[in-house]
Amino acid sequence: MTQPISRDDIRAASERIRPHIRRTPVWTLPPGALGHDGPVSLKLEFLQHAGTFKPRGAFNTLLTQPVPKAGVAAASGGNHGAAVAYAARQLGIPARIFVPEISSPAKVEVIRRLGAEVVIGGQRYADALVACGSYIEETGALSVHAYDSVPTIQGQGTVALEWEEDGSGLDTVLVAVGGGGLISGIASWWAGRGIKVVGVEPEGSRALHASLEAGRPVDVTVESIAADSLGARNTGELVFSIARAAVEHVTLVTDASIREAQRTLWRDWRIASEPGGATALAALLSKAYRPQSGERVGVLLCGANVELSKLAELC
Amino acid sequence: MTQPISRDDIRAASERIRPHIRRTPVWTLPPGALGHDGPVSLKLEFLQHAGTFKPRGAFNTLLTQPVPKAGVAAASGGNHGAAVAYAARQLGIPARIFVPEISSPAKVEVIRRLGAEVVIGGQRYADALVACGSYIEETGALSVHAYDSVPTIQGQGTVALEWEEDGSGLDTVLVAVGGGGLISGIASWWAGRGIKVVGVEPEGSRALHASLEAGRPVDVTVESIAADSLGARNTGELVFSIARAAVEHVTLVTDASIREAQRTLWRDWRIASEPGGATALAALLSKAYRPQSGERVGVLLCGANVELSKLAELC
Repeated sequence: MTQPISRDDIRAASERIRPHIRRTPVWTLPPGALGHDGPVSLKLEFLQHAGTFKPRGAFNTLLTQPVPKAGVAAASGGNHGAAVAYAARQLGIPARIFVPEISSPAKVEVIRRLGAEVVIGGQRYADALVACGSYIEETGALSVHAYDSVPTIQGQGTVALEWEEDGSGLDTVLVAVGGGGLISGIASWWAGRGIKVVGVEPEGSRALHASLEAGRPVDVTVESIAADSLGARNTGELVFSIARAAVEHVTLVTDASIREAQRTLWRDWRIASEPGGATALAALLSKAYRPQSGERVGVLLCGANVELSKLAELC
Repeated sequence: MTQPISRDDIRAASERIRPHIRRTPVWTLPPGALGHDGPVSLKLEFLQHAGTFKPRGAFNTLLTQPVPKAGVAAASGGNHGAAVAYAARQLGIPARIFVPEISSPAKVEVIRRLGAEVVIGGQRYADALVACGSYIEETGALSVHAYDSVPTIQGQGTVALEWEEDGSGLDTVLVAVGGGGLISGIASWWAGRGIKVVGVEPEGSRALHASLEAGRPVDVTVESIAADSLGARNTGELVFSIARAAVEHVTLVTDASIREAQRTLWRDWRIASEPGGATALAALLSKAYRPQSGERVGVLLCGANVELSKLAELC
């Protein structure tokens, strides 16, 4: 099967978004640094604008789609909302972000500080989605999908391009999966190149694992400490088709191991991480993923949007 | 004047401590990323073991001095105590750290977790110092000085060696100053090489600034938000003599600008920093140090041992 997204597509996205995003550091650790007896390559993507990889896809979308006068809209009280708000502000595009009433005041405040108009309404995420959809229908505002769209996935794939250029060789990369936009982009970059792209999902939020098992995108129920960033109910068709062809497999980790990875990141590395940002590392530390001896393992640290007071309680 | 510490000394220290320390990333940001119109090179030394650069000097001391059976001792409830505890544990050397009763339980807990025996006693730091001195006299334990000693300064100088090897050219580096061990090592590395080494001290904790002004090491009173890591009362002779010859100048920053730098580091970069770790950046952000147009400025982010709950209040 031809991959729907090629290396050339991702190269073009990288050129396009380069002036707007941070080229985050790749840090190669010697054998033993994280328990494993081979080198470990950390991509420090939590240092990205707005605290996660997501501005990559948002910029690529805004720079390739016609942007109407009404600007851009998204439904998200979390990382996607912050990324869209950030990218829109940088490009001088008005942004309206719809969030449910349950969203944490801290996250809403971040989105506001990034310059977006925040519309709070409805009890659940689904309500915000409906309100956002009505607004888009009325005004013609551009919608930026959080994962299941070509420009989003092309943008997220630029993480892998940088990792390849700046790193020192990889056999395997571990990537946390929510809706699957990030891993689809990364797997598109390395498809057929002998580098294993392994997804990591919380046991209680396994949209991609369940879909690969079922052979088609299926809905899952979501209950995990990482649900605020990884809690997608369904990957959608595009992510599913890319992942089926190019993701090696998906491994599952417990919430306890995610918490332990957050603790390790803060105590031993002074990296403040949200649960979703520590999920890939959790697979290595908990041995949910067991590398071969000497295997060169990449771990993507993809997000840091944690409330410090909550992290303080955990550590 | 011949520098008391040469590049060869620092190269030898680097080889010596290499198996034990982390080679922390150097991250070059494009013009504009931090307000300044030239590139900025960040050395992410807060990712070091025990959360600061200090294990470099501690390892170099323990690996070059005879270690008696009684092991090693230090008086410090802060970063120095944690670094000595960490280095001693890794080398299998017993460590006893003396801390005053005012030390925060969180920092004491860190030192304990790093495997040292903690002796709590006395109201003030000076009391812990006396207790440590008596212990050393009785037992012959090795003392590791936090800044004013040759092996300590050689070890801290390895930061500059790595920065030069891994970075892409510098005109100036901004370095926070407490007792001055770090800046002495860095200035020794770059002495006579056309790179300006600029010290940054809080207005309320200016041991090096006052000494350079007086032409000799003088005591200062200390009152600053960064006192827990930068609050030395006197640099001592060795630091003073190196700094007088090789440090370009020392600039002063307010506590308010240090707090603002901590806020910026967390809000815009997702880097959790202690006050002392944000002090060098504060000079650039507050324009206490004003680079020339296009000047290539290095900023050392040297420590992250902040209590997350306190940082949460600040941000």
